[in-house]
Amino acid sequence: MQTLTVDLGDRSYPIYIGQGLRHQKALFDEAISGKQVMIVTNDTIAPLYLASMVSMLSEDYHVDTCILPDGEVYKTLDTYGIIMSALLEAKHNRTTTVIALGGGVVGDMAGFAAATYQRGVPFIQVPTTLLSQVDSSVGGKTGVNHPLGKNMIGAFYQPQAVIIDTETLSTLPQRELSAGMAEVIKYGLICDTPFFDWLEQVMPQLMALDNDKISDAIYRSCLAKANVVAQDEREGGLRAILNLGHTFGHAIETEMGYGNWLHGEAVAAGSVLAVDLSWRMGSLTEQDVSRSVALFQAANLPTLPPSTMTPDQFIERMALDKKVLDGNLRLVLLAELGTAVVTSDFPIDAFNACLEDAIEASKQAVNA
Amino acid sequence: MQTLTVDLGDRSYPIYIGQGLRHQKALFDEAISGKQVMIVTNDTIAPLYLASMVSMLSEDYHVDTCILPDGEVYKTLDTYGIIMSALLEAKHNRTTTVIALGGGVVGDMAGFAAATYQRGVPFIQVPTTLLSQVDSSVGGKTGVNHPLGKNMIGAFYQPQAVIIDTETLSTLPQRELSAGMAEVIKYGLICDTPFFDWLEQVMPQLMALDNDKISDAIYRSCLAKANVVAQDEREGGLRAILNLGHTFGHAIETEMGYGNWLHGEAVAAGSVLAVDLSWRMGSLTEQDVSRSVALFQAANLPTLPPSTMTPDQFIERMALDKKVLDGNLRLVLLAELGTAVVTSDFPIDAFNACLEDAIEASKQAVNA
Repeated sequence: MQTLTVDLGDRSYPIYIGQGLRHQKALFDEAISGKQVMIVTNDTIAPLYLASMVSMLSEDYHVDTCILPDGEVYKTLDTYGIIMSALLEAKHNRTTTVIALGGGVVGDMAGFAAATYQRGVPFIQVPTTLLSQVDSSVGGKTGVNHPLGKNMIGAFYQPQAVIIDTETLSTLPQRELSAGMAEVIKYGLICDTPFFDWLEQVMPQLMALDNDKISDAIYRSCLAKANVVAQDEREGGLRAILNLGHTFGHAIETEMGYGNWLHGEAVAAGSVLAVDLSWRMGSLTEQDVSRSVALFQAANLPTLPPSTMTPDQFIERMALDKKVLDGNLRLVLLAELGTAVVTSDFPIDAFNACLEDAIEASKQAVNA
Repeated sequence: MQTLTVDLGDRSYPIYIGQGLRHQKALFDEAISGKQVMIVTNDTIAPLYLASMVSMLSEDYHVDTCILPDGEVYKTLDTYGIIMSALLEAKHNRTTTVIALGGGVVGDMAGFAAATYQRGVPFIQVPTTLLSQVDSSVGGKTGVNHPLGKNMIGAFYQPQAVIIDTETLSTLPQRELSAGMAEVIKYGLICDTPFFDWLEQVMPQLMALDNDKISDAIYRSCLAKANVVAQDEREGGLRAILNLGHTFGHAIETEMGYGNWLHGEAVAAGSVLAVDLSWRMGSLTEQDVSRSVALFQAANLPTLPPSTMTPDQFIERMALDKKVLDGNLRLVLLAELGTAVVTSDFPIDAFNACLEDAIEASKQAVNA
């Protein structure tokens, strides 16, 4: 087992990474302070991992469960309301602990429910997808989507602990493994060149779920995220670098309809757009661009935007992005490989050309 | 103008109290950091005070408005969703400021919207009812009701400023003025005997809205609340004393249906139950009880529970109250006039007798 700490003063918490951790009751005992537990999960994960967790925790706690429909399309205020009703119907009080057992959607919604149930109760993240293990379960972002924008409703709320069991990746569809790998690659791009180099070497083993390699990749990703979050919990500045590719990516996800492009897929295509724009601005070499594209491709990820989108659709969607400050579009770009910058200072011609060329390339790829 | 500060470190904020403060633009300028403003109000307050505020703020800001239906029955997740949609439709970004213009319901919902819009944006409270001026606008409790419980969904989230214009009380129905006075009296009971004595002297002038007297009463009430909140922002202990009468009161409000009993009316009847139980336990004199009852009556408030409720209904409703810890019912009682204690250590016989006698007295009052 590997352990690291997200350092946030009195809101600090541990991240545990290892095989079979979902069975280590002591990790849960340490993070649960009351007698009531509500496990929130979805109908894909429940048949796989819920019964054993209920059985283990029922030894010492009163355990209730809330099983949500699986999918980003259900990450809504209505589904959030289902969790709140489940807590109230089972008469959970302010000392209850909410456990999020599932991917990012479950974690975001269960976290938002914990943040707002009786104005806040403790919660534990047990992320079961690679994406949630390396990204959404760490850092305290919780929330739901709105038809007009992704993650527009939510709160910053830190868990008591994040318990990452790498065994749960064995039941993850390949497409979702790839989607998670987009965020792993992102950490290499924004802040860790040696990690980027290492990923180029071991990507086939990671995609084959070599256990030591995947644990190391998760650890290194969580470490990068924890370092950034510790310096900027509420995204006042530095934390924005974690959004490499996300502003473009959110536009893709929103325009194509939630769930048609996976978040990680949109981030991959969006990151390549950001890498491409950085190259057009002279910050990256052609080789940096081709290495980035090749690494995303090695993880079976898309590196071009949807051929059906127009540059105007991107711009319209990006103008409502959370990273827009008073009308100035701010983007995460790379100053060099391994160094991200957040800036609204980019040539609009290069920005437009970047979108136009990528969409044209995407059309050609479709027609080929 | 009187000013006081709620001392919460980097979340400290000022409370301004005075005549016509809603027209003092400088107070708003100090609290607004971006260029966008969303004024949330209701259809009772909007015709009275909205146009002048929009006009004043439009000089410097982009101002949008969201007018909600008036009433506690609308304090729901659905109405909260209306605010979120209004913010998104008008493309408000993370630098927007939400202004709550209205009573406690508007303040609680607008505050929860501010707490959770894009994971938190600044907000300003402009409370227009006595209840919200002396209670709900101060302290950072925000949220909405659930069919299974009041204020079960919400967050602790502090405003940038509270701007209390005593002129707005002139348009407040007498019944709501009385309801607000219940919380004013509560401060005397729980922590300020001289204030209680003073209230006995000036209650007729307060009910007639004597401006100096009402300003003083609001100031003294906010000071009491600010002191408690500064010591216990998230209701870990001391803050619970502010809930004198509220556990009984919530049972009344929930059982009778939101809005049929005003919150303050339920608090008044609930406070008398708590005073009565404290007397049965030997902490108060008969005179303390009669003085308390007389003061609530001087504010035209009910001092008995609904004749239609049973003790069992109280107990059932109180068992889901937020102040229940692991099944132990904790109540706010008085150790003496002006000193509140939170305790689960009370004789159950006295508790039952208190409820039975009060309900019986209520039935007799109805039949008289």
